Amino acid sequence: MDKINRQITLASRPIGWPKESDFKLIESPIPVPGPSQVLIRTLFLSVDPYMRGRMNDRASYADPVKLGAVMTGGAVGQVVHSNLAKFPNGSYVQGMLGWQDFVMSDGSDLHRVNRELAPLSAYLGVLGMPGLTAFFGLLDIGQPKPGETVLISGAAGAVGSIAGQIAKLQGCRVIGVAGTDEKVRFLIDKLGFDAAFNYRSETNYFAKLKELCPQGIDVYFDNVGGELTDAALHYLNVHARICVCGQISQYNLTEPELGPRLLWKLIEKRAKVQGFLVMDYAPRFREGFTQLAEWLGTGELQHRESIIDGLENAPKAFLGMLHGENIGKQIVRVSQPETGASSFL
Amino acid sequence: MDKINRQITLASRPIGWPKESDFKLIESPIPVPGPSQVLIRTLFLSVDPYMRGRMNDRASYADPVKLGAVMTGGAVGQVVHSNLAKFPNGSYVQGMLGWQDFVMSDGSDLHRVNRELAPLSAYLGVLGMPGLTAFFGLLDIGQPKPGETVLISGAAGAVGSIAGQIAKLQGCRVIGVAGTDEKVRFLIDKLGFDAAFNYRSETNYFAKLKELCPQGIDVYFDNVGGELTDAALHYLNVHARICVCGQISQYNLTEPELGPRLLWKLIEKRAKVQGFLVMDYAPRFREGFTQLAEWLGTGELQHRESIIDGLENAPKAFLGMLHGENIGKQIVRVSQPETGASSFL
Repeated sequence: MDKINRQITLASRPIGWPKESDFKLIESPIPVPGPSQVLIRTLFLSVDPYMRGRMNDRASYADPVKLGAVMTGGAVGQVVHSNLAKFPNGSYVQGMLGWQDFVMSDGSDLHRVNRELAPLSAYLGVLGMPGLTAFFGLLDIGQPKPGETVLISGAAGAVGSIAGQIAKLQGCRVIGVAGTDEKVRFLIDKLGFDAAFNYRSETNYFAKLKELCPQGIDVYFDNVGGELTDAALHYLNVHARICVCGQISQYNLTEPELGPRLLWKLIEKRAKVQGFLVMDYAPRFREGFTQLAEWLGTGELQHRESIIDGLENAPKAFLGMLHGENIGKQIVRVSQPETGASSFL
Repeated sequence: MDKINRQITLASRPIGWPKESDFKLIESPIPVPGPSQVLIRTLFLSVDPYMRGRMNDRASYADPVKLGAVMTGGAVGQVVHSNLAKFPNGSYVQGMLGWQDFVMSDGSDLHRVNRELAPLSAYLGVLGMPGLTAFFGLLDIGQPKPGETVLISGAAGAVGSIAGQIAKLQGCRVIGVAGTDEKVRFLIDKLGFDAAFNYRSETNYFAKLKELCPQGIDVYFDNVGGELTDAALHYLNVHARICVCGQISQYNLTEPELGPRLLWKLIEKRAKVQGFLVMDYAPRFREGFTQLAEWLGTGELQHRESIIDGLENAPKAFLGMLHGENIGKQIVRVSQPETGASSFL
């Protein structure tokens, strides 16, 4: 094993769609952990839509990644040299490890993960941030009731695929919107959605939603925004709830997009539109995790991943995810876990 | 007293701004109440923004007024012939009496009002639908906390002027937006708003809101919509609440207006936008009324009206209200209450 740490840094701030040249792979020595520190080797890296915002030079709810700095990102890793009793050599951890082979930590931002309970990569998907996002966004903001109609955009993605299944578990009629015919079949055949359609080939969202949501829409879990959301708002039921999880259709625009004003519609329908971030639910993560793990264990929740191998392919995985190429959670497999508990150094 | 009932009917459905010729005054005999019915003479008539929607040929949350039918509207009246013990001759009632001198009722839609507690016209304003709208919209949806900044659009109108005062009573910093300099002075000098500005003379809403809301906006009580709301959204604080009460800037457009898409902003700020109708709070009207009456009694709540005399001037009063000519609640005084309890018939 080479004692080189590969890191993927932000090379330039994209205008519009990011491209591979906005990232740069650099090499540096593997850091040596000091007292009360651990060295972690990255096993699985998560790429997520929110990272697009971090590439901009504009503080949003989090600071941007600095130019030349390692790209931020959640990952599952293995402790390969430990000076911390809480995280012994060989243990598995989850945290914001970044796009790199190795990272040092004082442990304050790490959580142990249990390989017996679920595959390690699941801690970046159904049992990680996307699963918790779906869980709290849908249940806390959407509050779906049995028999209600729930519409999910970005339904075949990491969050949408979980949100739709949770809505089914609540006894709802669930309609998904996704970007390929394969995803549409996946939603219906594998995840049990009641109906779904391909927004790229469908030319009239209004007619399609009218057809698939004949009772109107009670909960709209929106990952996408744009014209699909305009149409969805048209079919809201009284007291509808819109969980605004993401607006991926807007993230790569060079100019803010205009759309029909919608607030009057919210009065007519006494509807609620609420944006949320999963981190605001941190005090309740244990509750969400426990329920998600239970559903995963019983098979009530299906867990689908798209995996790309190699840290060097993280930019490609990220760009592919922005373009909707993944089904389920997009993961980058960086290295294989090692058995045994000896130090790597 | 002439035994003629004047009624103002909907003569044509306006495209864009309504005009006086969209209404027609007709005369008919005063109806004679049957058993278990009362005849009511209208004293004060309310004109409200929602009536614009009823003039369209499109069902919203309520059915449109039919062409040729009497315009709908809340009013306070006096029972002038009673065949119902609950509403004796001379008693005062509030209900959807419509734009007419006289109306018959079986009592099911009437409420007695107490002239000793407040002036009769107050039951159309601070103690009526506008007051309850402000009360529940601000407190239930906005949930203002002491020290928070509350922005009110349409702040000098029937609802806005009450909402702003309630926000002050909650210990908030309150900023009002209104359409004349006189209204701005009224808000600051008479109602105790912390600041206010005239949106018609102000050219840069962004700069003005930045100046007046240096701590950002926690609650936005929106009666207006449009560009002002675009700017307000720019200054939302984390976990801000937007109470969507009205969108009067949009009601007279001939084409739906486009505006910047705003849902991504709601994610960044984890903000909630909720539309509401006061009728959904009907089970809690007693609670709201009791509190409003108490504040009115102690002088903590100021009650301002603009009064126009004569049923025939109801269209003018309505159009003036749509154009923002009123300060406080716009009322049409239709007739004077009579003392004594003899039947009019």
